[in-house]
Amino acid sequence: MTYRFGLLSFPNVQQLDLTGPYEVFASARDCEVHLVWKDRAPIRSATGLWLTPDTCFSDAPDFDVICVPGGAGVNVLLNDTETLDFLRRAAASARFVTSVCTGSLLLGQAGLLKGRKATTHWNALDFLDGMGALPVKERVVRDGNLITAGGVTSGIDFGLSVVAELIGQDEAETVQLMLEYAPAPPFDAGTPETARPAIVSEAKRRVSKSRHERQMALNGQ
Amino acid sequence: MTYRFGLLSFPNVQQLDLTGPYEVFASARDCEVHLVWKDRAPIRSATGLWLTPDTCFSDAPDFDVICVPGGAGVNVLLNDTETLDFLRRAAASARFVTSVCTGSLLLGQAGLLKGRKATTHWNALDFLDGMGALPVKERVVRDGNLITAGGVTSGIDFGLSVVAELIGQDEAETVQLMLEYAPAPPFDAGTPETARPAIVSEAKRRVSKSRHERQMALNGQ
Repeated sequence: MTYRFGLLSFPNVQQLDLTGPYEVFASARDCEVHLVWKDRAPIRSATGLWLTPDTCFSDAPDFDVICVPGGAGVNVLLNDTETLDFLRRAAASARFVTSVCTGSLLLGQAGLLKGRKATTHWNALDFLDGMGALPVKERVVRDGNLITAGGVTSGIDFGLSVVAELIGQDEAETVQLMLEYAPAPPFDAGTPETARPAIVSEAKRRVSKSRHERQMALNGQ
Repeated sequence: MTYRFGLLSFPNVQQLDLTGPYEVFASARDCEVHLVWKDRAPIRSATGLWLTPDTCFSDAPDFDVICVPGGAGVNVLLNDTETLDFLRRAAASARFVTSVCTGSLLLGQAGLLKGRKATTHWNALDFLDGMGALPVKERVVRDGNLITAGGVTSGIDFGLSVVAELIGQDEAETVQLMLEYAPAPPFDAGTPETARPAIVSEAKRRVSKSRHERQMALNGQ
């Protein structure tokens, strides 16, 4: 028995949205992790790291878990029929349909969030409503076979939850120990509720361009 | 002013040791992150993800921060003169000499840990003694301009600490918020002290081959 994970990989993906869950999944027993995209040419992530997809939409196997990471590149894909069609196909055969960060907006555009609880990055949560989802402000949200995670680093918490659901808690704990995941953030600024107002303003300012592009894409402009 | 980070990238690196700090560094203002290796050919990480170095030992600029991630590939490099020479050169001009996970063993072999407090993955801490280091069982350890981190996921806590030292706490907090780093592990198995004994045994069993290879390399065999 092999568990197959398909992680959508696209230009300007937020690489840690992908590499965090990747390491969790690939460290679990009997797991095979694919980076899936339209072709296999190297792609540049939002912060510059190059990733190399190994599987194309056209030759992708049935995945046990399909996972859509986020990042500025999501905006370009919100109206990309080829990608949304692939996600619908993959979701139809997957045991778990999942996302990290703004990846959930692609699931939403594919019509996969209607009437279901879901989450995303704190600065994108207001976009889920318009997709018929029920937005939940939690780090990892499960609704049936749909598991969505909050921003970027939540992908590690998410990954362990998925391994626990798919294989079992013992396996998830073994991976957690191998990856020494006993986090100890040096500061308490990880959410807009705990960060100082000046920090929240600055973080919003830095992602405002991407947020604007997202809004334009969803308006069909 | 640009802050330059050099992350050592090598075959069988543990990719999250590298991609975690990468995302933190590359999300900070005025930061430029390089993947440094002997050449620019794509390299396969320990769990399969392909990475593409962008900078060679021979044309590397002076880095403000040199960072050595860990992984099974470290074992092969423990006696690799070219790599150890590069690390000594890079360390001589860097403001901070750093590592994640078993990357500290390479710093140790390069003679950069003598008489200094350092840490590594929980299952490798006993190797630091033999390198003249003073092993400390903490998630992020600073001794002067040396900053070492524990296993794999500690690289995110570490990355934020380095950004705070180099640029300032406001910048580190802004990055923490953008990456929504408010971790919430679903289980409490991240260290051998908190994990159940059966989980510790299983994790040790899975990395025993790599541990044996490391011992053989340090014995010069």
